[in-house]
Amino acid sequence: MKEARYFYVPHADQSSELPADETHHAVRVLRLQRGDEFFLMDGAGTIYRAEVTLASGKHCMYKIVEALPQSKTWNGHIHLAIAPTKMMERMEWMMEKITEIGFDEASFLNCKFSERKELKLPRLERIVVSAVKQSRKPWMPQLNGLMSFSDFIRQPRQGKKWIAHCYQEIEREDLFDQLQQTAPNEAVTILVGPEGDFSTEEVRLAMEHGYEPVSLGNSRLRTETAGMMAVAMSQIAKRKS
Amino acid sequence: MKEARYFYVPHADQSSELPADETHHAVRVLRLQRGDEFFLMDGAGTIYRAEVTLASGKHCMYKIVEALPQSKTWNGHIHLAIAPTKMMERMEWMMEKITEIGFDEASFLNCKFSERKELKLPRLERIVVSAVKQSRKPWMPQLNGLMSFSDFIRQPRQGKKWIAHCYQEIEREDLFDQLQQTAPNEAVTILVGPEGDFSTEEVRLAMEHGYEPVSLGNSRLRTETAGMMAVAMSQIAKRKS
Repeated sequence: MKEARYFYVPHADQSSELPADETHHAVRVLRLQRGDEFFLMDGAGTIYRAEVTLASGKHCMYKIVEALPQSKTWNGHIHLAIAPTKMMERMEWMMEKITEIGFDEASFLNCKFSERKELKLPRLERIVVSAVKQSRKPWMPQLNGLMSFSDFIRQPRQGKKWIAHCYQEIEREDLFDQLQQTAPNEAVTILVGPEGDFSTEEVRLAMEHGYEPVSLGNSRLRTETAGMMAVAMSQIAKRKS
Repeated sequence: MKEARYFYVPHADQSSELPADETHHAVRVLRLQRGDEFFLMDGAGTIYRAEVTLASGKHCMYKIVEALPQSKTWNGHIHLAIAPTKMMERMEWMMEKITEIGFDEASFLNCKFSERKELKLPRLERIVVSAVKQSRKPWMPQLNGLMSFSDFIRQPRQGKKWIAHCYQEIEREDLFDQLQQTAPNEAVTILVGPEGDFSTEEVRLAMEHGYEPVSLGNSRLRTETAGMMAVAMSQIAKRKS
């Protein structure tokens, strides 16, 4: 049996040709030919079974054979807002992992102690697309570019809002306990700080804007591990059985 | 304030000299001098506050000032047994992450569909030591070298034993539900298969030896992500508040 092939094609049902980046993989790498079957993921909840109608050097045309609407495997909306690490490799790794685990939205924060003040979103988006295909996620998560911490926390936001920090002097609830107390469809947003943590002023400012301080547990975690654990906890608490 | 320095020194209280690998870092990189303070982690539950008594090119002598016995932040014994991935980089990443998150023992399995049939343990041990220091874990986890799947499952083992697999036709319980039902101090062992999963014969054989089949959730996870999630779930279920 040939391995099933999955391609990410937004609005797949409104087109009959693979986008250029997927065409190369289909025609040059997998050597798909007329009549071969593949799957198109539209990133919006539907996977389409499709058939190649024409495969040439630079084009791969298809017709949709069957629409397979998917259902979400977790409740609510999981939003991670994180200060990107100095080493981009660590953020790239985290984005791959949280895509596999399952999240809905990621934002990147420019904080007082941030060691990274700029961020190239397209590379992270490519990593997420690749992990979406590999882990067969029917929905493409939303990624938001770098924004100042104070602008982010002022944005109106549905559901529960938490800020994870490591200061002993600011009382914190256990994030997982809090997650288990959310209503099934309640959205959750979790802020994770940079290598040097949020400043205490940032924690206080977030609290003034409705974010509750939380702890990710007793372990001392690197930023990217903290982000990954925040998503893992959300996924465990909000998974459908 | 100078950053606190942590060194991993097994049996630190039975010596008065840093091991060679730590000496270089202490003397050449951090340039510690007589009278400087540092911390020694013995990997067996105690952190020692110590003072440099002599620092020369190749030697760093110390005297212990204070023993600081630590307490474990989770209950039971968390044991991950995993088939190492083809790409060692993915295992190395996982070992760093599960050390930060917190585990007690890791074993490596040679399975029917394993793409990696040999494993260099010393490099993984170095990564774990580094993460133990970075995340200040008082206990050094135990790492066991590659062993055949059938030998491993025949070993006597305390506590609950699970095998994670992806076969729809073999009924599985939800691992996190199962973990939450364990007694606080009950040990847990979780088997995670290679890229091509365990064979159905391996799953059945494990079941005959007391391993219960489990699912890590609805997400399709890479091997290293599955291993990391198994540890994350164990840590969340067994954390002390």
